[in-house]
Amino acid sequence: MSNYHPLTEAEAIEIAKSLPNVLQPGKEVVCREIGDGNLNLVFHVSQPETGASVILKQALPYAKVVGESWPLTLDRARIESEALIIEAKLAPGLVPVVYRYDSEMALTVMEDLSDHVIMRKGLMEGGVYPKFAEDISEFLARTLFFTSDLGMNQQEKKLLVKSFINPELCKITEDLIFDDPYTDSPNNSFDEHLRPDAEALWSDTALHLEVALLREKFLTQAQALLHGDLHTGSIFITPESTKVIDPEFAYYGPMGFDIGAVIANLLLNFAGQEHWSADEQTRAERRSYLLETIREIWPSFERKFRKLWAEHGVDRIARTPGYMDDYMSRLLKDTFGFAGCKMVRRIVGLSHVADIDRIPDPQVRHRAQKLALSIGTFLIKRGRNAASIEELIDIAESAALAAKG
Amino acid sequence: MSNYHPLTEAEAIEIAKSLPNVLQPGKEVVCREIGDGNLNLVFHVSQPETGASVILKQALPYAKVVGESWPLTLDRARIESEALIIEAKLAPGLVPVVYRYDSEMALTVMEDLSDHVIMRKGLMEGGVYPKFAEDISEFLARTLFFTSDLGMNQQEKKLLVKSFINPELCKITEDLIFDDPYTDSPNNSFDEHLRPDAEALWSDTALHLEVALLREKFLTQAQALLHGDLHTGSIFITPESTKVIDPEFAYYGPMGFDIGAVIANLLLNFAGQEHWSADEQTRAERRSYLLETIREIWPSFERKFRKLWAEHGVDRIARTPGYMDDYMSRLLKDTFGFAGCKMVRRIVGLSHVADIDRIPDPQVRHRAQKLALSIGTFLIKRGRNAASIEELIDIAESAALAAKG
Repeated sequence: MSNYHPLTEAEAIEIAKSLPNVLQPGKEVVCREIGDGNLNLVFHVSQPETGASVILKQALPYAKVVGESWPLTLDRARIESEALIIEAKLAPGLVPVVYRYDSEMALTVMEDLSDHVIMRKGLMEGGVYPKFAEDISEFLARTLFFTSDLGMNQQEKKLLVKSFINPELCKITEDLIFDDPYTDSPNNSFDEHLRPDAEALWSDTALHLEVALLREKFLTQAQALLHGDLHTGSIFITPESTKVIDPEFAYYGPMGFDIGAVIANLLLNFAGQEHWSADEQTRAERRSYLLETIREIWPSFERKFRKLWAEHGVDRIARTPGYMDDYMSRLLKDTFGFAGCKMVRRIVGLSHVADIDRIPDPQVRHRAQKLALSIGTFLIKRGRNAASIEELIDIAESAALAAKG
Repeated sequence: MSNYHPLTEAEAIEIAKSLPNVLQPGKEVVCREIGDGNLNLVFHVSQPETGASVILKQALPYAKVVGESWPLTLDRARIESEALIIEAKLAPGLVPVVYRYDSEMALTVMEDLSDHVIMRKGLMEGGVYPKFAEDISEFLARTLFFTSDLGMNQQEKKLLVKSFINPELCKITEDLIFDDPYTDSPNNSFDEHLRPDAEALWSDTALHLEVALLREKFLTQAQALLHGDLHTGSIFITPESTKVIDPEFAYYGPMGFDIGAVIANLLLNFAGQEHWSADEQTRAERRSYLLETIREIWPSFERKFRKLWAEHGVDRIARTPGYMDDYMSRLLKDTFGFAGCKMVRRIVGLSHVADIDRIPDPQVRHRAQKLALSIGTFLIKRGRNAASIEELIDIAESAALAAKG
């Protein structure tokens, strides 16, 4: 990494100009750095006259979270770029196209998706995405199936496991999702009005056992190449299009972690509707839309995954009677558990979500936080006994009803 | 690997002479190649006058099994050597000392254990090893605990996972243990009188589901650094000493696979007593000795593993109430299942054991084979419901009783 240095806007323009078939020679080119500066530089290079544009994403050798800064491997740029390339092959059209990866500069040059919005923001603004359940279930089913021992050669899979060993980024998940929220950790961050709720989490040993078991799966179960951070901030969306971005947390882990992440973030928005819906009726409609989306994601995922299994299972063992049913049933249980963990950490852990944190009224915010915590802990505890996605819907609806008092 | 070539005896002697503090200068040195020629060259270099000796083990770039020959990675020599070094550190005195590893020549130079016998042979000859249960439970508890997320830093563990990715050797296990025995595979090899028993295996779909689930664990669960081939032919023994050798199948997998291998091979000898015991009383005594050994191994393993966990658990999560009990209960279930798979494959699969195959009388051999198959399939089917090692003892005793008719 001897030549590594953070790019200037001028350098970003030069790189963009060197790409074949992106910008037209001789026309004006402009560049804006649009990253949040916490982990990466993100340059948006465009040509106003032609409408052509491209994104350059460069990893920075540190992470900044809530004012703290710690060193972070540049290897995550390789992982992100390689994961995007694999995902593009397996789920065409559902990730940005990678034009170039420069390992020395930890730089990925890719398709500009500025015509999309970040899904979290879209949901907060009341957006409706009729294609989302179809697209995300397709992304999940295809990327998870075809990188697992069910859908690819098992010896080649082991080489992928090796290539996606990702200790530093996994460590962030292990600490922030599976550890800190369940103890009085200095990494936690929550409104003071939530202290009794946080303390309840810290003393709930039945909950801790479930979290320990889920963490063990995260640590040991090399089931498929995960995105690893599949929240609604990692999804660019329009009503017609879904693009999954930012797989720098990619590694071989339990499939339910990715599926659970999507569902958890829809449920966080569900909880946030305490504020984002102007009145009771809008709130009921909005929540119903979110739950319907979940109700569509799981069965679509399951149907597609089973179809891929039936058509592309790589070996005889995959056709063992009862095996597919057993597998799908375990995936659902994992999905409940991981979804729950993903919700809890966003309320009491270090890193929050705008769906909840941007609620200005502390009392309303508190209601939304308690609702999210309630759904999250219920999901974690139901996990090992879960048998149908309807149970998850029931948990969310009942918790919302209880929150109304 | 450009300079790689199979060593001559003269070269082996030169290498032995170059080791510090092994042979004395100026005294006669002799060399014998004692490998079976199927996978490795094994040179025994000794100095008759001083009694000093050393073993040079060199991997060959192919494997020969039952007349077939196929290419096999020399990287297994690195894996074996690195695994031995880790095991020696974690379980001192229970593996041969490695003096040198030469990656280019795929050569490991190590302690000579000629004063020990291969345990399988020792058991066939009626040997009694009062220290074995203590030693092997120590080996298992310490190597498995300290290479798991429970006993070592979880980020360093991921680097070990990466370093021990072992696709070619794992493929052998995946095929020969978890696949071939359960279908009419050309790789299978069994006496024609066993055909009805083999066909019963091939059509037992309830059994196939259990095997598919165990195979999935073998493929995905990076729980600890396994020996990977821990049968009684990989153990050198005397009444006072136990040395585990040949970890070329080492990789990160489910702990129960190693524990189950030990137990399976004791049970294969148990079945072989149809022949190896001269009379009913000897047979009863011998079987009782073998079952008592198993009865000691599991509780000793469990006690030691729990103690290591309590004293050396690396994090707060390891102390979650109920977690250790849940973990140990799952380990026992896995041990049943993997032990069963290890038995079945030695009867109908490609590679057999002398405890059974060297029984000269076909009728007696058939009784031993059927007994081993019966115990193996019972163990696989009990696996997910197993709750105590006594159930395994009961299964073996009942099957032996039923075999007597």
